[in-house]
Amino acid sequence: MDNLDTLFYPQSVAVIGVSESPQKWAYYPIKHLVDGGFSGGIYPVNPRLSHIFGLKVYPSIEAIPAEVDIAIIVVSAHLVPSVLKECAQKGIRGAVILSGGFEESGMESGAKLQEEIMAIADRAKIKIIGPNSVGIGNPYANFNATLESSFIDACRGNIAIVSQSGGVCAFLLNSMINQNLGISMVMSLGNRWNVDFADLVEYLGKHQQTKVITLYIEGLDNPHKLIEAAKGVVPQKPIVAYKVRGESLNRAAYAHTASLVGRYEVYNAAFSQAGIIAVDDLTELIDVAKALAFQSPPRGNRVAILSGQAGPGIVAATACQHYGLTLAEFSPQGKKKLGKLVGTPFFSENPFDMGAAFVKDTTQIFQQVLEILQREEEVDAIVVSCVYHPLNTPLIESLINLAEDKAVTKTIVAFGSSPKGIADQQIARLENNHIPVYPLPDRAVKALAGLVRYGKVRYLTS
Amino acid sequence: MDNLDTLFYPQSVAVIGVSESPQKWAYYPIKHLVDGGFSGGIYPVNPRLSHIFGLKVYPSIEAIPAEVDIAIIVVSAHLVPSVLKECAQKGIRGAVILSGGFEESGMESGAKLQEEIMAIADRAKIKIIGPNSVGIGNPYANFNATLESSFIDACRGNIAIVSQSGGVCAFLLNSMINQNLGISMVMSLGNRWNVDFADLVEYLGKHQQTKVITLYIEGLDNPHKLIEAAKGVVPQKPIVAYKVRGESLNRAAYAHTASLVGRYEVYNAAFSQAGIIAVDDLTELIDVAKALAFQSPPRGNRVAILSGQAGPGIVAATACQHYGLTLAEFSPQGKKKLGKLVGTPFFSENPFDMGAAFVKDTTQIFQQVLEILQREEEVDAIVVSCVYHPLNTPLIESLINLAEDKAVTKTIVAFGSSPKGIADQQIARLENNHIPVYPLPDRAVKALAGLVRYGKVRYLTS
Repeated sequence: MDNLDTLFYPQSVAVIGVSESPQKWAYYPIKHLVDGGFSGGIYPVNPRLSHIFGLKVYPSIEAIPAEVDIAIIVVSAHLVPSVLKECAQKGIRGAVILSGGFEESGMESGAKLQEEIMAIADRAKIKIIGPNSVGIGNPYANFNATLESSFIDACRGNIAIVSQSGGVCAFLLNSMINQNLGISMVMSLGNRWNVDFADLVEYLGKHQQTKVITLYIEGLDNPHKLIEAAKGVVPQKPIVAYKVRGESLNRAAYAHTASLVGRYEVYNAAFSQAGIIAVDDLTELIDVAKALAFQSPPRGNRVAILSGQAGPGIVAATACQHYGLTLAEFSPQGKKKLGKLVGTPFFSENPFDMGAAFVKDTTQIFQQVLEILQREEEVDAIVVSCVYHPLNTPLIESLINLAEDKAVTKTIVAFGSSPKGIADQQIARLENNHIPVYPLPDRAVKALAGLVRYGKVRYLTS
Repeated sequence: MDNLDTLFYPQSVAVIGVSESPQKWAYYPIKHLVDGGFSGGIYPVNPRLSHIFGLKVYPSIEAIPAEVDIAIIVVSAHLVPSVLKECAQKGIRGAVILSGGFEESGMESGAKLQEEIMAIADRAKIKIIGPNSVGIGNPYANFNATLESSFIDACRGNIAIVSQSGGVCAFLLNSMINQNLGISMVMSLGNRWNVDFADLVEYLGKHQQTKVITLYIEGLDNPHKLIEAAKGVVPQKPIVAYKVRGESLNRAAYAHTASLVGRYEVYNAAFSQAGIIAVDDLTELIDVAKALAFQSPPRGNRVAILSGQAGPGIVAATACQHYGLTLAEFSPQGKKKLGKLVGTPFFSENPFDMGAAFVKDTTQIFQQVLEILQREEEVDAIVVSCVYHPLNTPLIESLINLAEDKAVTKTIVAFGSSPKGIADQQIARLENNHIPVYPLPDRAVKALAGLVRYGKVRYLTS
C-alpha cells in the first residue's frame, strides 16, 4: 500500500465476525456498513451464519470468491492472530481491528497477543488501524466501518476527526452533527501500531475534502514523528489538537489505549513550534475547527465588535482581552462615518453598539456599517452579535446579504441564539455562507482566537 | 412599598406608550403582557389609540378607572418626567422604564433627564427598574413586562436572572430555554437608580421559587452594598456572577448602562469573600447555575469518574485537575468489589472504565457500581459519562433507575450526547430527576467545580 487510500476508499471489505444480536459489538460494523450505503463489495464472515442484512455470509476469508481490499475485524482478541494470517494469505492490505483485549488490557496475555498480531501485520505489510479502535468512516465513500451509530448522521464536510479514543470520537461526532458541521473523515486509532497520528496527518494533508484536521491525543510513543508530519501540513491546512494532560492519568491512558500521557508542557511547546493549535477542552476543539472550516484566518488580532445591544458586545470585548485579541481602534474618518450613520457620535467606538439606529431604516444602515468596518485598515476581524429579536432582524439580514453577495473581505464570526429554533433559518443562511454562528459571545471570540493563532502560522510560513 | 413584591407580583399594570407597529419597541411590552396570559388588570395608555390586542386604550394615566400598582413606560426619554409625575399622582408605586436616552446616552441632556426623573421617583417613593431596561418577567405570575420575545418560551423553574444588560438577558434566556432550564424571575436593570443589584439579591434571597441567583454585572456604584446583601443570602442560596472585566471597557459600559467596569481583581476578591461564585464566561454561568439548581453541593472536591468508554473519562479527569478537583482514591475493598463486578481487576481505578462489563448483564452491574461508589468514603461527587450508543443504554438506565428510586446520596453530574436528539428522552429522564447532563465532559466537570465552590461556602457558613 503506497498510501492509505485503500483503507479509506476500499473497493471491497470483508467483515470478520458478524452477529445478529444487537447486544453484541459484532452486530454494528456490518449493520453500519450496509446502512451507510457502501457500494463496494461487502463480505461478512462467520462460519455459523448463512445470511445477514440480506448479504451472503462466508464461512472463512478464504471462501470469499473475490479480491478483498481490507478487513474489519471484530472477533475475540485471541482469534485475531489467526484471522490476520488468513487476511495475509488472501492478499488483504489493510485491517481495522475493533477487537479489544490487547496491550491496553494490562494483562501480559494481551500484550503478547498484540505483539503477535503486529508481527504478522508487519510481515504481510498489512496496514492496521487499531487494535481497540471504534473504526474509521469516510462520508465521501459512504463508508462507515465503525461501531458508532452516530456516524450515519454525519454529513459530508471538511473537518476530519482523528481520535485515539472511540468514546471521545462519539462525543465529537455527536456535537458536530448537532451543530450541522460536515465531516470529511473519522479515524479512531486505538492502540496504534503501524498507522499512527503522523501517518494520518500526512494522509489528511493531501486529502482533498479535508480542510481542517482535529486530533484527540492521549499519548504518543514518538511525538517527534507527529510534529514533523504536522510541520509539513500546517502551511496548507490547520491542525487543532486536544491533548490529555496530567501525569496522574498515565495509568488510565495506558489502560485505555496503551499510551503514556507525558508532560503537557513539553507537548504544548512542541505543538506550538509545529504550528498545531492546541486547545483546552473539547468545546474549543469543535468551535475552533468550525471557525477554521468556515473562514480564512485574519492577518492580525485587531477585532471590531458590532452589536445591536451593547451588553453582548461588551461580553465579546471582555473575551477578546481574555484570549489575547485586541479591540481595533477605528480611524477618525471611520468613526465619523459610523457616528453619522447611526445618529449618535458618542457610540462610534469599539465595541460598536448600533442600538440607536434601531428606529431608522436599519438594514441599509447596518450594511453600510459592515462595509465601513471591512474597509477600516486597523480591523483584522469582525465579531457580530445576532441575537434573535424581531427588531434585530435587519442586523442579521444585513450580514446575510453581505455573505450572500460574497462581499465578505475580512474574517467574520458571529454569535446569536433564539429560543426554540425560531432563528434557525437565519443562522443556517449565515452558516451556508460561511459565517460561523456560536450560541454565546465568549465562544465566538475564543473560536476567533483560534483563527488568529492559525493566521500567524499560515502567514509566517507562506 | 415595603418590599419589591408589588413590582414583581402586580395586581394591575399600566403600559404607558403602546404601538400597533411591530417596527416600534412600544409594540412589544403590551403584546408580551397579553400573550403571557397576565391575569391582573392591564391598562394601555396612548391618546391616539382606542384599542390594542382587544384591550381598551386610555388617553392618559389619570383616565384609568381603577387603582394601578405599577407602570411599564416605553415613551421617548423626554416624555418620561411628565409620565412619571402622572404616575405619582395616580399613586403608582413601581415603574419599569424601558425607554433609553438617559445617562447612558453620553449626552448632557440625557444625564439631566435622568436626574429629573429620579428626583420625581424618589419624592413619590416610586421604585424604578431602569431606565434603559428591557424589563422584568415573572413566570409564576404569567407576568412578562419585557421587550424580550424569548421570555414567552421560558418555563417555570428556580433560576433567577438579574442582568444589567438586556441583550445579555436575551442570550441567557435563550440558552436556558433551549436547555430546558426553568426560570424563576428575569430582571433587567439598565441604568439602576433606586433598585439595584443589592435590593434584588436581597429580594430573591426570600423569593420562595428562586433557588439559584445568576448575575450579569457591568459595573457597580456601590459594590459594598451588593457584597453585604450577598453575604446574607449565600448561606441559603447560591449566587453565581459574571462580571465584565477590563478597564478599557469603561467607556463602553458607561455608554451602555452608565456604569464603570472597575478593577476586576478587586471585584473578584470581594465576590470570593462574600461567597459569590464568580465565573469566567456565560457558558459557565449557565452550566454552574444548572448544576446548583439540580444538585446539592458536595462536602469536598474528591471526584469519582464512571464511564463505559475510557476516553471521555480521561477527558473528565483532565478537566478535574484543571478546575481544582481531585480524583478520589478508592478504598481497597471498593476496588476489589468493583474489579470483581466488572471482571477486570486492572480497571478498578479512577476514572473507572466499565468497558469490560459490556458483555455481561450490564444494567444490574452498573447499578451496583454506582451504589459502591456512593458508599465510598473518599468520594464526594460522581461524574458519569452517558454517551449515546445502543450498547451504552444499560449504563444510562442504571443512572436513571438510581435517580428515579431517589437513591442518589452523593452529588452526581453527567455528560452525554446523541446525534439528532436520539437520546433526548433519556437525558430528559435524568434531568427530571435532578441529574444535570452536559453535552461534553469538560463542561460537566467545570459545572461540578462550581458546585464544589458553593459547597465550601454553604458548609462553612452553616
